[in-house]
Amino acid sequence: MTEQKASNIVWHQGRITRAKRERLNNHRGFTMWLTGLSAAGKSTLAVAIEEALYKLGCNSYVLDGDNVRYGLNKNLGFSPEDRAENIRRIAEVGKLFRDAGVINLTAFISPYRSDRDSARKLAENENDAFIEVFVDCPVEVCEQRDPKGMYKQARAGAIKDFTGISAPYEPPEKPEIHLCTDKMKLDECVEVIMGYLIEHDFIPCSPVRKVTCDRE
Amino acid sequence: MTEQKASNIVWHQGRITRAKRERLNNHRGFTMWLTGLSAAGKSTLAVAIEEALYKLGCNSYVLDGDNVRYGLNKNLGFSPEDRAENIRRIAEVGKLFRDAGVINLTAFISPYRSDRDSARKLAENENDAFIEVFVDCPVEVCEQRDPKGMYKQARAGAIKDFTGISAPYEPPEKPEIHLCTDKMKLDECVEVIMGYLIEHDFIPCSPVRKVTCDRE
Repeated sequence: MTEQKASNIVWHQGRITRAKRERLNNHRGFTMWLTGLSAAGKSTLAVAIEEALYKLGCNSYVLDGDNVRYGLNKNLGFSPEDRAENIRRIAEVGKLFRDAGVINLTAFISPYRSDRDSARKLAENENDAFIEVFVDCPVEVCEQRDPKGMYKQARAGAIKDFTGISAPYEPPEKPEIHLCTDKMKLDECVEVIMGYLIEHDFIPCSPVRKVTCDRE
Repeated sequence: MTEQKASNIVWHQGRITRAKRERLNNHRGFTMWLTGLSAAGKSTLAVAIEEALYKLGCNSYVLDGDNVRYGLNKNLGFSPEDRAENIRRIAEVGKLFRDAGVINLTAFISPYRSDRDSARKLAENENDAFIEVFVDCPVEVCEQRDPKGMYKQARAGAIKDFTGISAPYEPPEKPEIHLCTDKMKLDECVEVIMGYLIEHDFIPCSPVRKVTCDRE
């Protein structure tokens, strides 16, 4: 190690701000909060949007059960308190991602209006950086899709407090975007969302960086 | 809403992978875990590195007390269990940022080896994406700096379990980088770290994007 050169070092306290990061990325950091019944299409939609954003050169990330419930929130169960804490932590992580200038898409049922409103409240004074998307699909259609067989289990009583069957779902009253996934194709849903984001200046309308290689 | 066009819609399950995001960003997603006593210079160093990374066009973010203790971890105190949970959540958030292809710098005392090792363990199989930096400074020097007057309060007994005074600090045994901040200038510390990152192919050696405006 080098010898001591100063006994009372004044270190510069700089900070790269969110605005700087957004300028570097050429898009805003925001949260797109997808809410809806199980099998309504939240995750499918989230990954499709992520792909569309990637093609524009935008930095985005999907927060979902796969990477949250088995990591950050693995010590939470399904009691009302734990459900609220689950959503609270997701909302706080979303805030960190926004601050980092990264687009984050959350794909959780998030059935309670109060929990979603709390998540929105964290984005107060962030110039509408919280976009609630109601992924709307009748429970009968979701039940028919039932990709994981969970509705069947819920009907059989094997899963308690299943949203839409034995637990309530409170639809958003004023979501920024409302999509009926039983009537619209995935491509149409993505188009509506991307159009909204471009129109509201969240993202650019043409690629900001050269996406050199699409193989994976 | 448009009329129903398909009754049994097969939605494409794509996913933008971490490797794709890293390729888009032209740098790796990794965690730089700064550990050391209070006033050793962790936060100062973190923001200085963040600035250097920004100038290279890299996406990075500092996780520190300001944005974590008052948000995600605001329901945690300073009991041993809460301290462990504090570090666990930070480590999990770091993992999410890595997966998003974003560089994250954590600036917490993190005095216990076991907690830091748990954080490192989360990055197993991620090709050394966890870089522990020992921000080393003798307690006497930290106490002399005492920018927030906390050592004084700890000596007076007003703060219990203060690391280095009345609670232990377990120094890293094999940190990737070891900096003695009582002997090195900030610029030198930054140089060592940036050199390490370039040498190990975490970041490019020249700007990957044009940083158009530095005013803020």
